[in-house]
Amino acid sequence: MKVILDLCVIPLGVGVSLSKYITACEQVLKEANLKTYLHAYGTNVEGEWDQVLSAVKQCHEVLHQMGVPRISTSIRLGTRIDRQQTMQEKVESVEKRLKGKKDKRPKGKGHF
Amino acid sequence: MKVILDLCVIPLGVGVSLSKYITACEQVLKEANLKTYLHAYGTNVEGEWDQVLSAVKQCHEVLHQMGVPRISTSIRLGTRIDRQQTMQEKVESVEKRLKGKKDKRPKGKGHF
Amino acid sequence: MKVILDLCVIPLGVGVSLSKYITACEQVLKEANLKTYLHAYGTNVEGEWDQVLSAVKQCHEVLHQMGVPRISTSIRLGTRIDRQQTMQEKVESVEKRLKGKKDKRPKGKGHF
Amino acid sequence: MKVILDLCVIPLGVGVSLSKYITACEQVLKEANLKTYLHAYGTNVEGEWDQVLSAVKQCHEVLHQMGVPRISTSIRLGTRIDRQQTMQEKVESVEKRLKGKKDKRPKGKGHF
Repeated sequence: MKVILDLCVIPLGVGVSLSKYITACEQVLKEANLKTYLHAYGTNVEGEWDQVLSAVKQCHEVLHQMGVPRISTSIRLGTRIDRQQTMQEKVESVEKRLKGKKDKRPKGKGHF
Repeated sequence: MKVILDLCVIPLGVGVSLSKYITACEQVLKEANLKTYLHAYGTNVEGEWDQVLSAVKQCHEVLHQMGVPRISTSIRLGTRIDRQQTMQEKVESVEKRLKGKKDKRPKGKGHF
Repeated sequence: MKVILDLCVIPLGVGVSLSKYITACEQVLKEANLKTYLHAYGTNVEGEWDQVLSAVKQCHEVLHQMGVPRISTSIRLGTRIDRQQTMQEKVESVEKRLKGKKDKRPKGKGHF
Repeated sequence: MKVILDLCVIPLGVGVSLSKYITACEQVLKEANLKTYLHAYGTNVEGEWDQVLSAVKQCHEVLHQMGVPRISTSIRLGTRIDRQQTMQEKVESVEKRLKGKKDKRPKGKGHF
C-alpha cells in the first residue's frame, strides 16, 4: 500500500531552536531512500506504508538518542485504491488549474 | 517504545455519513487489545509503537476493503523517555489543576 | 457558521511539563462559554466559528503572556451545511453502532 | 501577532477528486494577499493572525457556496515572541544544515 504522508516532528524540552532535530529527521528519511519534500511546517514523504512508517519511528528513536526527552508529532497521511498518485501530481493538478484561471483574467487586473 | 496516539480517519468518496467507517476503525483498535478513548474528533490510543501503528494500517486496509476509494488520516503521536505517562494521567493532571483553580474562586462567582 | 474544533496547543521552550499551560487554555475556553471536552491529546470545542477561533487566539496570547516563547498548535475543524451536528451526537452515533455490533456477537466470545 | 500556518482543507461528499476545491482555497489565500506555499499535503501561509484566520474561514465559506456539504480541515499553526521568523527562514535553516552535513561526508559515500 502506497502512502503520501506529511510529517511534523516537534521535540519538547530542548528549547526553541529545533532545526538541528528537523535536520536529523530529514537525514533519516533520505537514508531510507524515500522521496521527500521539505516545507515550512513539515515534510512530505512518499513510499510504501511500512517503509515510510518505519522511518517515522526511526525519527523518534534518533531524536530520543540525541537527548530529546519528549516528542509530539503531527502527521497527515493518505492512501487510495482508485488510482496511483504521486506528490508531484497532487501539486501539479492544482497549479495547472490555478494557471488556467490566471490566464482567463483580463490583462493587468490579476492579483498574482 | 510506548506511544500515545490520536487518530482521525477521514474516508473520501463515500458521502458525508462516516460513522459506519469510524465504527469499523474502533473495532480494529479494540480487537488489537489497545486502550482506546473515543472523542468527537478522533480516538486516543495507547500502547506499544509497533502494535498501535500496525492497527492504524489495518484501519486503512479494512476501510479500503469496505469500498472506500481514498482515505486521509490525521494523527498526533507522542513518545517520551523521561518518564512513563498514560492517557488517563494526562487528562487527570489537567483536571486536577482546573479543580484547584475552581476551588480557589470566591463562592458564587465561578463560570463553571 | 457552527464549527466543531479539536485543539492541541504545544508550548515550546518551557520544558516537558505542559499541564500548567493546557490548564490555562482550558480556562480561556471555559470563560468564553464554549462547550469543551478534554481528552488525552487535545480538547474538543463546539460553537460559532468567530467565537471559537477567537478563543484559540486568546490561548496563544495568554500563553505568551505566561512567558512561553514559542507555540505550535495542531487543529482539526469541521463545518457542515447539510445538517446540524453536535460533538455529543458525533460520539453517540459511533457508540450506538459499536453497541449494536457487540450485542450481535455470540455470548462469551466478545473482545469488549 | 504573526502566524505561520499550514492548511489542509478536505471537502467531504463531493467524491475523490479534490483539486478543484483546493484551487479555490489557493485563490482565496492569494486574493487575501497572503504569502503562500503549496505542497503535496497542504499549503503554508504566513501573515498576521486575524488576516490568515479570516482567509481560512473564507475558504470554508467559498467551498460551501460551491456545494460542498461538509468540510474537515487540518491546521498546524505557530507563533513566537522570541524573534521574527519567516517560512523561508524555517526551510533555509534546515537546508543549510543538511548541506553542511553532506559536504562533510567522504567523497563517493553519500546517500544523497
